[in-house]
Amino acid sequence: MPPPVLIAVDEASGIGVLTLDRPEQRNPLSVETMREVIAGLTALAADTKVIVVRAEGPVFSAGHDLRQMIGRTLDEERAIFETCNEMMRTVQSIPQPVIASVQGTALAAGCQLVAACDLAVAAGDARFGTPGVRIGLFCSTPMVAVSRAIGRKRALQMLLTGDTIDAQTAADWGLVNYVVEPETLETATTELALKIATSSPETMRIGKEAFYRQIDLPQETAYAAMAETMASNAMIDDAQEGMTAFLEKRAPVWKDR
Amino acid sequence: MPPPVLIAVDEASGIGVLTLDRPEQRNPLSVETMREVIAGLTALAADTKVIVVRAEGPVFSAGHDLRQMIGRTLDEERAIFETCNEMMRTVQSIPQPVIASVQGTALAAGCQLVAACDLAVAAGDARFGTPGVRIGLFCSTPMVAVSRAIGRKRALQMLLTGDTIDAQTAADWGLVNYVVEPETLETATTELALKIATSSPETMRIGKEAFYRQIDLPQETAYAAMAETMASNAMIDDAQEGMTAFLEKRAPVWKDR
Amino acid sequence: MPPPVLIAVDEASGIGVLTLDRPEQRNPLSVETMREVIAGLTALAADTKVIVVRAEGPVFSAGHDLRQMIGRTLDEERAIFETCNEMMRTVQSIPQPVIASVQGTALAAGCQLVAACDLAVAAGDARFGTPGVRIGLFCSTPMVAVSRAIGRKRALQMLLTGDTIDAQTAADWGLVNYVVEPETLETATTELALKIATSSPETMRIGKEAFYRQIDLPQETAYAAMAETMASNAMIDDAQEGMTAFLEKRAPVWKDR
Repeated sequence: MPPPVLIAVDEASGIGVLTLDRPEQRNPLSVETMREVIAGLTALAADTKVIVVRAEGPVFSAGHDLRQMIGRTLDEERAIFETCNEMMRTVQSIPQPVIASVQGTALAAGCQLVAACDLAVAAGDARFGTPGVRIGLFCSTPMVAVSRAIGRKRALQMLLTGDTIDAQTAADWGLVNYVVEPETLETATTELALKIATSSPETMRIGKEAFYRQIDLPQETAYAAMAETMASNAMIDDAQEGMTAFLEKRAPVWKDR
Repeated sequence: MPPPVLIAVDEASGIGVLTLDRPEQRNPLSVETMREVIAGLTALAADTKVIVVRAEGPVFSAGHDLRQMIGRTLDEERAIFETCNEMMRTVQSIPQPVIASVQGTALAAGCQLVAACDLAVAAGDARFGTPGVRIGLFCSTPMVAVSRAIGRKRALQMLLTGDTIDAQTAADWGLVNYVVEPETLETATTELALKIATSSPETMRIGKEAFYRQIDLPQETAYAAMAETMASNAMIDDAQEGMTAFLEKRAPVWKDR
Repeated sequence: MPPPVLIAVDEASGIGVLTLDRPEQRNPLSVETMREVIAGLTALAADTKVIVVRAEGPVFSAGHDLRQMIGRTLDEERAIFETCNEMMRTVQSIPQPVIASVQGTALAAGCQLVAACDLAVAAGDARFGTPGVRIGLFCSTPMVAVSRAIGRKRALQMLLTGDTIDAQTAADWGLVNYVVEPETLETATTELALKIATSSPETMRIGKEAFYRQIDLPQETAYAAMAETMASNAMIDDAQEGMTAFLEKRAPVWKDR
């Protein structure tokens, strides 16, 4: 049986792709699969400029593997959610922008994974939901990412009703960035990834790390931290080159490629 | 004179209803009325699965009773706003989801009450505002709930201009969840409440408590707390039954009803 | 050469106007210009009720002056961003509401300035962006204001792609409040300013200060602080007059004008 998670790198463009590949099982996020996602992202982080997370089949991911959560001890349950937290943390802690490319339904931890990605492109027929309440298991870890993406009332609507929302609603609420025709999902995702890959990787690394560092801080504290970050960023070669190139009306040549 | 706050329980469905019933006075939130709301919510919390907060008349609530705020001491003023805070806290601290069903204009603390409810359904002709600035009394306590629901710029627009927004705008901004034809408000609210009432009350209690506990935490702290909450949730009978029923493709039978 | 920042006060209405006036250079926020903005806002704060920040030319502001950031020491870079932070802090710490009136493209620190203003009116053909990533200098200080205005996914989209958004998108995302026909920008801005100028300045001062004090606090802490603020506000003459006038169905006469 092939592994549940595939990774691929296009060396010319610097785009890494991680694919959930258990379409018949609706791409469940079993502990083993989550560990492979963590390993895959870590591996891709070594030599890419941008990473796409996608899936095969009509379901992006239905969430955790329920069969692993029945009849277990509390410590076994804890291990599942701690692994899940580590997966979400990895998405945001690796230096490269991570783009979710969502072709189908994303539920529970699957929806959380989309929310945790830096950017998301969705096929027009994709759907999103946190339906745990319907099976007695409230989507409490997914709501960390989802409520921070779409706000209180909308998160509570998804969480308390278990209803799914369509791709356009997800875009209107800020859960995804772009909605495209299903047949153009791959093209649109690649186009976005290529655009991002033209930037200096070192600058991207500085910026992504800074984003998540400042977002939960009080504004005044955030400003103080970011002034220091931006001053240091301005000193790096790629910033000096980028500013100079801009003033000289030419394309920059990054030292860090 | 009848009491300003009515409560009713439909035992068959588990839906509790709290009604503001001073339509001629525009349902003012006097200290006495706020105490009755607190008592009513607390009473309903004893034996319902979901609670609807609604009002009679063309105004959902015009906010505090200004007659109680003229010529008072600072301590008397404090008592009003502390009671108001307690009312808003009660909405979010009782275990059941609370749905605001808004038939008319909701102003100042009335708008805040809508913002504080977990969910809100609005009639298409309802309006929302925080107009205190126009009478010299800035809506500082309402802005706590309103700014957390709709974001900075939009909250400042409502607060600094005193202008009201219509129901569709309130939905676009995340202040309410659903906008319906005025004549279908009760039906739509009941339909939403019935859907929520089908879930395990214990799961709902876990989830609602967790939502408000995590929402103001830094993401990393929130994830750690929610992993523990979700692991514990997975151990309860209703979660084990819910997951098993899902895998067996049958409806769950909750222990906690 | 005329100064890069002009200020004007209309004494009859109490509207102060600060204008960025280097249209040919795309209104760069050099250190000198930022110091003039700080001085100008501080001067206007002495005798106005509301302040408009506007700019001449097709570009509202292209952001920092790149020529000041090439070949400098780390301490020199720090001084730039600390001055920028001080400018943004001044916008929010002066007692008057500050309205950005955006006639053209607002980029990087220019976009941040719009985000930092209490309210924003945009011409329909204005555009907004944080394109620093394209020149190797991630918009880390702009993202403090922008991510707090429009949320995570949308902020990351602007930051990671460097793409600009149009005025309507900026309104849909909560970066600006109103989009108007370009030829009515001045009229619409003045109308908004006049409406705000009818309120009690003391009340406005209390409310604006309270807004930024509460917005980053946990909800429970915010409520406690705002109850005290609102109780104190209720005791001031303008609140007592405003409430009395409302009950007597007459226009209030503010003591503080």
